[in-house]
Amino acid sequence: MPVVTVQLWKGRTVDQKRKLVKAITDAMIEHADAKPDGLHVIIQEYELENWARAGVLGMDRKDA
Amino acid sequence: MPVVTVQLWKGRTVDQKRKLVKAITDAMIEHADAKPDGLHVIIQEYELENWARAGVLGMDRKDA
Amino acid sequence: MPVVTVQLWKGRTVDQKRKLVKAITDAMIEHADAKPDGLHVIIQEYELENWARAGVLGMDRKDA
Amino acid sequence: MPVVTVQLWKGRTVDQKRKLVKAITDAMIEHADAKPDGLHVIIQEYELENWARAGVLGMDRKDA
Amino acid sequence: MPVVTVQLWKGRTVDQKRKLVKAITDAMIEHADAKPDGLHVIIQEYELENWARAGVLGMDRKDA
Amino acid sequence: MPVVTVQLWKGRTVDQKRKLVKAITDAMIEHADAKPDGLHVIIQEYELENWARAGVLGMDRKDA
Repeated sequence: MPVVTVQLWKGRTVDQKRKLVKAITDAMIEHADAKPDGLHVIIQEYELENWARAGVLGMDRKDA
Repeated sequence: MPVVTVQLWKGRTVDQKRKLVKAITDAMIEHADAKPDGLHVIIQEYELENWARAGVLGMDRKDA
Repeated sequence: MPVVTVQLWKGRTVDQKRKLVKAITDAMIEHADAKPDGLHVIIQEYELENWARAGVLGMDRKDA
Repeated sequence: MPVVTVQLWKGRTVDQKRKLVKAITDAMIEHADAKPDGLHVIIQEYELENWARAGVLGMDRKDA
Repeated sequence: MPVVTVQLWKGRTVDQKRKLVKAITDAMIEHADAKPDGLHVIIQEYELENWARAGVLGMDRKDA
Repeated sequence: MPVVTVQLWKGRTVDQKRKLVKAITDAMIEHADAKPDGLHVIIQEYELENWARAGVLGMDRKDA
């Protein structure tokens, strides 16, 4: 532990993910006393038809 | 916030999802004092081989 | 199945929860072909210090 | 209820999943007083680019 | 990784939890090729007013 | 969206949480093209008896 789960739209490149998990891991070590060995970051990517805000699917929004 | 996550089998159409997230959002506004702007609904769809009930995978059940 | 998880601030009464899970269940039956027997709704309540929007904890926001 | 969610790399066969959900269900019945009828096991499979340990993506690790 | 999350009613003793996480871990090693060092089991306990089946809260059910 | 969920042991102060959610939010904006307005960070805190690694509860480990 700990486990950090990131839920976001599809479309990030592998290089973006690489930098993101590194930055989140650094934040966890600096601010939450986490040890890196047991620290997991999980990325869940969603289609625009599987996420809604204010009752409207991402595919139907202008500002998704 | 809040965040509502719906986990179900694959197979819903986009139009079903559109109505579902609207109805859940309305329920959250009416019964849980939620404001729509920060209200997210996330849909997670699962294959029949990735969900079990009573120890039996959906693909092996008659009533999945 | 399916499973619906609701994540929100603490503060809802039991009666609000009772109506909320009923309304979400009805929405799932009407729009997602769910059968009620296997349909679960889980409520997760959070303290104002355990949820942030735009990088600011709920306890530090005016509009949480 | 209850609900058990298993998050792991892609690559398990259907037969492995079949045995896994059976074994987890048995463990829940024996040690957690669960009744099988309402007991769900959900499997979430992840790509090597969507899971990091110690700040390094699975695709960049030797021991993933 | 992997991560297994168990969601259930409150009321299990520490000893039940101790046996449960051991049995789930063994199942993951035997059937899912998991290595124990990175294998986490998380337990989430819920109040009877925070879980519904078939639209009815656990506190209002006879068979919860 | 997006939503970032942090699962860790109990014991962080409010000030640690304040800095953590800010740092994670900054990481999401810089590396994942996230807009802050819809970006939520949720913190889930666990007791030592509700998290196991390698089949051993946190309360029974030396290095939790």
